Amino acid sequence: MTPTAQTCIDAFKDLQDEICRGLEELDGEGKFEEDKWTRPGGGGGRSRVIAGDLIEKGGVNFSAVHGTLSEAAGKALKTGAGDFLATGVSIVLHPRSPMVPIIHMNVRYFEMEGGVWWFGGGIDLTPHYVMPPLATDFHEQLKATCAAHSCADYEKFKATADDYFYIKHRKETRGIGGIFYDRLTEPNFEAILNYSLAVGRTFVPAYTAQVERTRDLGFDESHQAWQRLRRGRYVEFNLVWDRGTKFGLETDGRTESILMSMPPQADWEYNHRVEVGSPEADTLQWLRKGVDWV
Amino acid sequence: MTPTAQTCIDAFKDLQDEICRGLEELDGEGKFEEDKWTRPGGGGGRSRVIAGDLIEKGGVNFSAVHGTLSEAAGKALKTGAGDFLATGVSIVLHPRSPMVPIIHMNVRYFEMEGGVWWFGGGIDLTPHYVMPPLATDFHEQLKATCAAHSCADYEKFKATADDYFYIKHRKETRGIGGIFYDRLTEPNFEAILNYSLAVGRTFVPAYTAQVERTRDLGFDESHQAWQRLRRGRYVEFNLVWDRGTKFGLETDGRTESILMSMPPQADWEYNHRVEVGSPEADTLQWLRKGVDWV
Repeated sequence: MTPTAQTCIDAFKDLQDEICRGLEELDGEGKFEEDKWTRPGGGGGRSRVIAGDLIEKGGVNFSAVHGTLSEAAGKALKTGAGDFLATGVSIVLHPRSPMVPIIHMNVRYFEMEGGVWWFGGGIDLTPHYVMPPLATDFHEQLKATCAAHSCADYEKFKATADDYFYIKHRKETRGIGGIFYDRLTEPNFEAILNYSLAVGRTFVPAYTAQVERTRDLGFDESHQAWQRLRRGRYVEFNLVWDRGTKFGLETDGRTESILMSMPPQADWEYNHRVEVGSPEADTLQWLRKGVDWV
Repeated sequence: MTPTAQTCIDAFKDLQDEICRGLEELDGEGKFEEDKWTRPGGGGGRSRVIAGDLIEKGGVNFSAVHGTLSEAAGKALKTGAGDFLATGVSIVLHPRSPMVPIIHMNVRYFEMEGGVWWFGGGIDLTPHYVMPPLATDFHEQLKATCAAHSCADYEKFKATADDYFYIKHRKETRGIGGIFYDRLTEPNFEAILNYSLAVGRTFVPAYTAQVERTRDLGFDESHQAWQRLRRGRYVEFNLVWDRGTKFGLETDGRTESILMSMPPQADWEYNHRVEVGSPEADTLQWLRKGVDWV
């Protein structure tokens, strides 16, 4: 184990602990249950799931895996073959209430023998109902985190998130985006680790701000039906387009940890159309790239 | 339009009509609704959906599309670039009752300028609860259809279906399989068209036999919960592994027609485990390759 890898592993484990404590407090009822697992090829992880009052189905996963990249995998990653280590924290929360947004976060570190390394990560929000002041609040928090770190560029990472969290076959974004960065190496390891941890520590306060302003809003079966359709789109994005999910499933990763991102329930309806002027129609018109929320 | 293409298009349209009539009769209540659509690149289709008494959500799609294959697409298909035509009928039915199996069928014809052409197709069955005598009955009907056509090889097509309808990341087959063939060209166009139409005409009687022996079986909420989990696996197969779905979504096909295969509702539960000795556990042990049902 290299010292840099060990530093990241320790920091990401602490981050997982901190986020889980924060989410239990926010939920008020649910407690995380943990599965420790090992990977036949090397390494393992701690998958933690919660089903509570606020969160219907949520997962906070830490993993640190190592092994040897095949020529094919090395070609796909443009690193070449060789020994690698990858560690990260990955989260998806599906709230019970259709008024509360789905949220996703991921921070990760990758290194190869020979000195290649990088960080990646991001946070994005998927409201079932887009409420512009809340979208602005979310992006302002991300922008503030980026502003405090010279390695981060909110405008660029926001545009990358718009491109990444895009359901191409639906011609709509997954939600209101957030930030996404990958293969970050400049100016140095320590600066980007600090930024990645800051992104991680933005997660609970940013989500708490969303939850506080939505958890007491009333809803009925029609809102829940819409929530299930939007959860269907979440499934479509994750299984068809998300690089991490695809890579994991195709390379024999731990299926249950990869698919912790799935909603508890999702619906599909042929050719569903929203009513003109409805809150659902209003939400759809926000699901596009390039909205300047701040 | 080549004469062979026109022959297939006419025959597949008639097949769609015949199957829809048969399914309406079997359902007893639901009627198909049709969407005619055109493809910007050339051609179009007739998508038909049904929501009835037996069938909760079903689609029978006919399409005939033509255009020019890019170098990349031609490379993926190993045909090279050039003008192509593709036509077919594709069906997925999700029944209301967890005791009745999901069924899928597809027959298709592809031709390129310069004389390259082939047929492909198949039928496979996905019972929520595997009942061996019914699985045997299903495979016997497919075997009989194959036996009547010299271009068909039940043993080979059955093994191909086992390999194709496999959820790699779950290490389980989608259901009890069926037959699957692709790029069939021998001995000639007419023989394989006749076989493909015979496969199409096996669909209604084969499914009717399943339905007659399962539609009156009782069930409760626990069986429906299992059905929703199995529908989740169906989603996973279609979005992660099915070549037709992936190709369609990645090449800007008509999303609503491609995703007619989605169930009305699907559930995911982290690390779901079945009870030892339960009917659900019994079903899981049948979801493997190489079971000889006949």
